[in-house]
Amino acid sequence: MSEYYNQANHGPFEAFDLGDFALAEGTTLRACQLAYATHGTLNAAKDNAILVTCWWSGTSKIMEQVYVAEGRALDPSKYFIIIVNQLGGGISTSANNTAAPGGAARFPHVRISDDVRAQHRFLTEKFGITQLALVFGGSMGAQQTYEWAVRYPDMVKRAAPLAGTAKVTDHSLLFGDTLAEAIRSDPGWAGGWYASEAEVHFGLRRVAALMAVTAMAPAFFNTEMWRGMGFSSARDFRTNFLEGYFLPMDPNVLLTTLWKWQHADVTHGRGSLADVLGGIKAGVMVLPISSDRMFPPSDCAREQAMIPGSEMRVIESKSGHLGLFALDPDYSEQIDRALKDLLAR
Amino acid sequence: MSEYYNQANHGPFEAFDLGDFALAEGTTLRACQLAYATHGTLNAAKDNAILVTCWWSGTSKIMEQVYVAEGRALDPSKYFIIIVNQLGGGISTSANNTAAPGGAARFPHVRISDDVRAQHRFLTEKFGITQLALVFGGSMGAQQTYEWAVRYPDMVKRAAPLAGTAKVTDHSLLFGDTLAEAIRSDPGWAGGWYASEAEVHFGLRRVAALMAVTAMAPAFFNTEMWRGMGFSSARDFRTNFLEGYFLPMDPNVLLTTLWKWQHADVTHGRGSLADVLGGIKAGVMVLPISSDRMFPPSDCAREQAMIPGSEMRVIESKSGHLGLFALDPDYSEQIDRALKDLLAR
Repeated sequence: MSEYYNQANHGPFEAFDLGDFALAEGTTLRACQLAYATHGTLNAAKDNAILVTCWWSGTSKIMEQVYVAEGRALDPSKYFIIIVNQLGGGISTSANNTAAPGGAARFPHVRISDDVRAQHRFLTEKFGITQLALVFGGSMGAQQTYEWAVRYPDMVKRAAPLAGTAKVTDHSLLFGDTLAEAIRSDPGWAGGWYASEAEVHFGLRRVAALMAVTAMAPAFFNTEMWRGMGFSSARDFRTNFLEGYFLPMDPNVLLTTLWKWQHADVTHGRGSLADVLGGIKAGVMVLPISSDRMFPPSDCAREQAMIPGSEMRVIESKSGHLGLFALDPDYSEQIDRALKDLLAR
Repeated sequence: MSEYYNQANHGPFEAFDLGDFALAEGTTLRACQLAYATHGTLNAAKDNAILVTCWWSGTSKIMEQVYVAEGRALDPSKYFIIIVNQLGGGISTSANNTAAPGGAARFPHVRISDDVRAQHRFLTEKFGITQLALVFGGSMGAQQTYEWAVRYPDMVKRAAPLAGTAKVTDHSLLFGDTLAEAIRSDPGWAGGWYASEAEVHFGLRRVAALMAVTAMAPAFFNTEMWRGMGFSSARDFRTNFLEGYFLPMDPNVLLTTLWKWQHADVTHGRGSLADVLGGIKAGVMVLPISSDRMFPPSDCAREQAMIPGSEMRVIESKSGHLGLFALDPDYSEQIDRALKDLLAR
């Protein structure tokens, strides 16, 4: 099993024990662990908590590195910032750390709503938090942010979904199919019963190649932004940045969270999208990335129009969806300005 | 071998015998056949000829069906319209119709410049044409159109490259890699030595899935345009339109033309892009498709700015690159207006 998901790479993180946690799709995660990291201190009024959620393949570490620092919007000297790892994402209870018979290829389907229910139990039981100053996350983190605003409207004061949608689009669904197929069509995947992720390296490399085309923007390549990152060609960037990024990951972890991404839908078991988004009480700032080909601004705008009193600000970027990693020099400044404005309301 | 590339599916077409045709990359196609179809009559002055080139996976038949008709811009009652099939594209001399030892997996690399040199010999030797009223083509057809305007500046009076670029972008290069990998990673491909394209059906299905995500636009799915085409879901469209389209094709034919697409570059063996495009004498109208994710308008605009006296008109479409098939109701009207304006100059 992958050595990737450990404290050395992603820590420090702690775990909250949810006990037996029943999933929406009908399986129970036994002794379910929710891994998290915190920054800053919860004040006496317990009103300075910010929840940060994670994207596909990302953990609490990258969210800390890219978004949390003193003087920035997510400032640990002002706020108590809790970054929570996805169920099935490799660090919380997942395919790679669940013993037989329920792990590996038998790890069950997890929904965004399962994450949000688990996170709610964690925040209320562990810290006694009853109000969140902000929920913030990008991509699949945005899917969780929307679910929070819909499921717990009285607990979420503000929400900032970044580069993601409340309901998966058909285009995003079909893109997810190509990622899943890239892994599953590798004979080394063996129905999920590989001994090591190295046996599925070719499938993981193809995931990286698909992300190079769809998660990056043409402008990133036209302006040769990879030069400033230390690469000598577009293919060099693909291999030594993106393949390098995905190769140590666990294929079943990627498939678990991919299924979750493809089924993200705040209307699941509820009403119409307009009714569901219309019921949000939080102050919402929708933050699409201008060159995003996975969650284009037009897809985000359609949903934003349904959310009462919400605002949309487009983050200008040449990097596409992976602008999320702050690849553009003025990315963090734009994010901070938007979040500070939202937090000041 | 594929039964797909025949007169029943793509005819009527004829063939011009080029004899032994030496390719830029150093192999000779023996008894090389250039397949073509004509519509209309060459006038006595021989100044009413229009050359139409073909896109990846497309033949003279689809270009006729989508673009040629009386009353339209490409009007066979006014013009002598010659639609020419790509070398390696399945109907002209290609991997699927070349006998051993040179066919199948041994079919050589062909460049866009080879096509254009072959087409030039064909037009001059067969018809005595010395001037073309227009060269027009979409996608890889645009790559050929640009090469014509650069290679034979005094012969091309007008050129209309649609949804394509003169030099392949890095983004397009990386997308091509994913298509090639989809075929080559199918064990049935067997290094190109499959007995039938049916043995590579899974690779071809993955090509279709990649095209669904990249060649279509999110707006196509958001507005459920597939409903009007007789499909019941996005996945139904992918399987029963796009998989159905690619399944009968020959994988080696797709790989030959894919390599050609990935190496399309009017600067090859010449100077800088600005110098080469600056030497074009034709009246050029650059026609990107608004929602195109393979050859986005911004990529086309960059090149258009280098072509003296050229104009750019964006074709509005919700369908992305495959808008080329006239999927939008007002597509043909926009194309005809642009081409008629260009032809009137």
